[in-house]
Amino acid sequence: MYISINNELFLQEDANISVADLSIQRGYGIFDFLKTINNRPIFIQDYFNRFYNSAREMHLEIELNREQLHEAILKLINKNNIPNSGIKIILTGGFSDDGYTMVKPNLIIIQIPLNIIESESSKALALVSYNHQRQIPQVKTIDYLQAIRLQKFVRENGADDLLYHNNGKVRECPRANFFIITENEIITAKDEILKGITRSKILSLDIPNYIFVERDFTLNEVYHAKEAFISSSTKNAFPVDSIDGKLIGNGKNTITKLINDKILELIALDQKG
Amino acid sequence: MYISINNELFLQEDANISVADLSIQRGYGIFDFLKTINNRPIFIQDYFNRFYNSAREMHLEIELNREQLHEAILKLINKNNIPNSGIKIILTGGFSDDGYTMVKPNLIIIQIPLNIIESESSKALALVSYNHQRQIPQVKTIDYLQAIRLQKFVRENGADDLLYHNNGKVRECPRANFFIITENEIITAKDEILKGITRSKILSLDIPNYIFVERDFTLNEVYHAKEAFISSSTKNAFPVDSIDGKLIGNGKNTITKLINDKILELIALDQKG
Repeated sequence: MYISINNELFLQEDANISVADLSIQRGYGIFDFLKTINNRPIFIQDYFNRFYNSAREMHLEIELNREQLHEAILKLINKNNIPNSGIKIILTGGFSDDGYTMVKPNLIIIQIPLNIIESESSKALALVSYNHQRQIPQVKTIDYLQAIRLQKFVRENGADDLLYHNNGKVRECPRANFFIITENEIITAKDEILKGITRSKILSLDIPNYIFVERDFTLNEVYHAKEAFISSSTKNAFPVDSIDGKLIGNGKNTITKLINDKILELIALDQKG
Repeated sequence: MYISINNELFLQEDANISVADLSIQRGYGIFDFLKTINNRPIFIQDYFNRFYNSAREMHLEIELNREQLHEAILKLINKNNIPNSGIKIILTGGFSDDGYTMVKPNLIIIQIPLNIIESESSKALALVSYNHQRQIPQVKTIDYLQAIRLQKFVRENGADDLLYHNNGKVRECPRANFFIITENEIITAKDEILKGITRSKILSLDIPNYIFVERDFTLNEVYHAKEAFISSSTKNAFPVDSIDGKLIGNGKNTITKLINDKILELIALDQKG
């Protein structure tokens, strides 16, 4: 497998960077993550919008323009030939002489095999809530200090992942947005979250008898929801069946499945281009 | 110059690590920073206390025990021969197959020349305040997202560095603790900060006519202080003469200088061993 560093291809075992990089020295970097199906990147312009925006917010310059970045990704896809994959684009603060001052960013593109079928057939998720507000939430930074640190906590609580809330206001999962479904509303947080591409696709759907609402909501509303699901580039709309050990709804997840089907249709459309 | 990676010495230009490391992938790592004077590390056991504690808090295992880490540092000092230096010890989440799960940490030790005389003779600092609470504040993580991102903001405000506050409660600078001096008190934050080694040395001093107080205090108290200073391993006790464009005290910094002298005495004592 090859990895692209500053638009040069390296074998995985040679894909190294200097320990002077500001990601290692100061955790400074952004990234984005999109998937390919049959070697075609899905919704790539949406991901580029977010990636270039993250870079601007963090004062990082991307040496490649969108066309050049697209080409760099296609070059990697072509070289690796992993039809169904995740593409991770990382932009770090670059090599810094004093370990503090920002310089010329490093751009790293990594491709990871994704077993799309398997992930779709797995069971619903158990989440455990945790009081944490991500910093600079609108930017897809590489900061996962809490998520990684809490892996043990998640395991100890018999959960699959975290659900962050800010003093009771539900926010997001570390790598996914979060929705609940009530009698006639599909609700997701509006503020202080990373706005996922899949989340925005879901909000554009037409679901009969339901309206989408972006607002703050509480853990108590979550516990009493009819359905709950996460959205992400790899999982699309994926059911959650328990939170903090409390079962959510009747476990049928009818609306979540409908939403997931409609997302798969959008992906199929994009795939045809 | 040599850099130690997992207790092996590499020339600076060969000191690279795989892009699979969790510091690059997820900003996951801790570090510590101590100085050497005439090739002797100062207060090394205090720094080790903090470093091993940071590792424990982040569920990272350090393969070397204290004696072995001490030896690794002395080996680097001996090889590089930079008598007055900063020693940065970084412990990352290690190489992760899935870019998320913690594995075997990587330990990196970097030595940086420090011009101690120069830093002591430079002028007082101007700070600009910013509302930000560091996450997991008691741990010296590599998370400097806000500090690096705000370098432009600091410059635009004609300042030298940031002073973080949490909704008005003064906390710390990105790389230093912060003190104010009133009529008869020397005040520094108690909670939600990284407790610096120099800070703890200062709190142990005997300053005639003054008592040390660890408590929350406000920006307004800062603006009306008689003196203000930062403490850090490189700067010891270093005067601050303006915050948010407001001049602090009369600029003489008598007590700050006294504190700095006493810290220098402690360092000299430790140096003699």
